[in-house]
Amino acid sequence: MASELAVSLEDVRAAATRIEGKVHRTPVLTSSTLDALSGLSLHFKAEVFQKCGAFKARGAVNAVFSLNPSEAAGGVVTHSSGNHGAALAFAARLRGIPAAVVVPSNTPEIKRAAIRGYGVEPVVCAPTIDAREAACRDIQAQTGATFVPPYNHPAVIAGQGTIALEFLEQAPGLEAIIVPVSGGGMISGIAVAAKALKPGIKMIAAEPTGRNDAADVAAAKAAGELVQLPKPATICDGLEARLGSLTWPIVRDRVDDVVTVSEEEVVAAMQLVMERMKVVVEPSGAAGVAAALSSQLRSRHPQLRHVGVILCGGNIDFKASVPDFWQRWVDASKPAGSAELA
Amino acid sequence: MASELAVSLEDVRAAATRIEGKVHRTPVLTSSTLDALSGLSLHFKAEVFQKCGAFKARGAVNAVFSLNPSEAAGGVVTHSSGNHGAALAFAARLRGIPAAVVVPSNTPEIKRAAIRGYGVEPVVCAPTIDAREAACRDIQAQTGATFVPPYNHPAVIAGQGTIALEFLEQAPGLEAIIVPVSGGGMISGIAVAAKALKPGIKMIAAEPTGRNDAADVAAAKAAGELVQLPKPATICDGLEARLGSLTWPIVRDRVDDVVTVSEEEVVAAMQLVMERMKVVVEPSGAAGVAAALSSQLRSRHPQLRHVGVILCGGNIDFKASVPDFWQRWVDASKPAGSAELA
Repeated sequence: MASELAVSLEDVRAAATRIEGKVHRTPVLTSSTLDALSGLSLHFKAEVFQKCGAFKARGAVNAVFSLNPSEAAGGVVTHSSGNHGAALAFAARLRGIPAAVVVPSNTPEIKRAAIRGYGVEPVVCAPTIDAREAACRDIQAQTGATFVPPYNHPAVIAGQGTIALEFLEQAPGLEAIIVPVSGGGMISGIAVAAKALKPGIKMIAAEPTGRNDAADVAAAKAAGELVQLPKPATICDGLEARLGSLTWPIVRDRVDDVVTVSEEEVVAAMQLVMERMKVVVEPSGAAGVAAALSSQLRSRHPQLRHVGVILCGGNIDFKASVPDFWQRWVDASKPAGSAELA
Repeated sequence: MASELAVSLEDVRAAATRIEGKVHRTPVLTSSTLDALSGLSLHFKAEVFQKCGAFKARGAVNAVFSLNPSEAAGGVVTHSSGNHGAALAFAARLRGIPAAVVVPSNTPEIKRAAIRGYGVEPVVCAPTIDAREAACRDIQAQTGATFVPPYNHPAVIAGQGTIALEFLEQAPGLEAIIVPVSGGGMISGIAVAAKALKPGIKMIAAEPTGRNDAADVAAAKAAGELVQLPKPATICDGLEARLGSLTWPIVRDRVDDVVTVSEEEVVAAMQLVMERMKVVVEPSGAAGVAAALSSQLRSRHPQLRHVGVILCGGNIDFKASVPDFWQRWVDASKPAGSAELA
C-alpha cells in the first residue's frame, strides 16, 4: 500500500539531506504549566523558530533544490497569500534562481512585505482561485518557471516530513504527534515518516471547525472519501486550504484521528503559549496545542502520555488585529505617582 | 578595590553551584534580522525562558538556599509588585519553607496570581514604600522570617551574576554585554563575574529615560555619585527601582557606560523581538534590545561587533494593555467569502 502513496520514508530522508544547513533544526520545548493543564507530557516542536517563521521553508527548499539545472534556470512560481510564498522566495534566493509569487489583491501588506524581504515583488491578481492559477500559468508560459504548489506536491510533502525525523530523534518516547491540518502537506510528510519509523505512533490531525462548521478533514476521514464543505471561516488563516489529490490518500491511510477545535480554543491556546511559554505563535500554529488541551483528545485517547505537538508558525501581525496595539504599550506608561519598587 | 564590593566572582561561582538544577540554563538566541538592523552580531540570553519567566529566579533561589537551617525554618519575606515576589515564593516552595510576599494594593491581579501559583497568598498593603517595609517588619517580628530584598542583597546579586558565567561559556567571543538596569542587582552580578573572567569586556547598562527624564543611573555615572531623581514614569514596570547601597559601588566601578532609551524605542524593540524572533518579551526585558539598536550605542562604541543582550523577562499581560486583546483575535475570524488557499 505504501507504494501507492506520493511520498515514502526514503523521500523524506533524501529531503533531510537536501535541506540540511539551509533551514534550521528547530528546538523541542516543554512547559510544566501546559503539562499540568493537559495531564500529558507535552513536547513542542518549535517551527516558529524556522527560517521564514514557519515550517513551510522545509518544503519550499526541498522543492527548489530538487530541480535539475535546466528546470532551475527557468525559476519557480507559486500563488500564495501566506507563508508558502515567502518560503518559496527564500528558497529561490538561496539557490540563486528567479521566483514569482502571485498574491490575491486582499493579501495584507505585511505578507507582501515578507515576500519582498526575500527579493521578490509579488504579482497581484484578483482574489479568486481561478485568477491565481491563471496568473501562474501566464508566468510559466512567459518564463518557463516550474510551478511549486503549497502542499499538493511530492517534494513539498517530503520536505515537511523532515520535521518527523528530527522530532523522533529529539523525543524518541513520543506516543502520538498532533499536527494542524489544512491542505495536508505537513501532516502527510510527518505521518509517512513517523509511521515508518515507529509504526505504533498515533498521528492526530488538529482541525479548526471555524465559525461555519467546515472541518472537511474530519468529515472526509469519517466518510472515507473527500467531501465538499464550504471554506472554513476561521482565525487560522493558514488552515483554510483543502486536502489535495496527493495528501488525501496519505491522510486516509496514515492519520489515526482528527480532533476539531473551536475558534475560542485556538485563541486560548495562543494565550497559553504566549503568556506561559513566552513563544509567539500564530492562530494556525496554536491549533495543535488547542487539540492537546481538548476534552476530545482525553476522551478518545485516554492512554496517551507523551505527546508531540507542532508549533508550526509564528507569523502574527499584532497591528492587524489591534491597529493601535504597539502604541497602546507606549500609552500604558504609568504616571510617576503610581510607580512601584520591584 | 574588588574587596570593597559586596560580591566577588567566587560568590557568583558558589551561587551557580547552589542553584544548579533548580533553575534553567537558558539558551542563547540569534537573529539575522536584528543583526542587519543593528550592524552587530547580537547574542540574546533568553531569560524569558527562565523559571517564573524572568532572571529573578536565580537570585531568589540563591538567597533561599544560602540560609542556614535555623534561618530557613523561619521562612522568608519580601515586598514586591513584580517578578521578585513570585521568584521568592517559587524558591521557598523548592526548599519547603514558608514565604510571605507583601504587595501594594495597586498590584495587578495577574501578578498576585503568579505568587499564588507558587502557594503563597500575597499580603496586601497600602501602595507606599513605608507601608511595604512596615508590613515586612511586622511579619518578621511575628514569624522570624528573613527579609530577602529584590536586589540590594549579596546573595541576590550573586545569583543574578550566574547569567554571566553561562553567557560567556555559550558565547565566548562577546566584546560587550548590555543589561537593563534599575535597582542594579542583575547588572552588578553580571559585571562582577564578566569583568573578572574577561577584563576587556564592556559592561553597558540600558536605562529607560521614561516620560519624565528620570534616568538616574546615567546621571549617577556622570556625577560619580548617586543623584536624586523622581521615579521614572515608564512602560518598563520592572525598571522603576533605584540603585542601592550595594549595587551602586559595583555599577560605579564595573559598568562602562549607560545607554538611555525612550519609551518608543522600547516598544519598537518589543515588536521586533516578538514579530521577528517569535519570543515574548516584557518592556523591561526589551530595554537592552532597544539599546543595542540605538544610535547612542553605535556612536559611542563604534568598535563593537559581538554584543550580548539580556532578554531578562517575558511576563506580559496582553489584556492589561488591551482589555479585549484575546477576544479581538476571535473576532478577527474572516467571513467565509474572503478565505484564501495558502
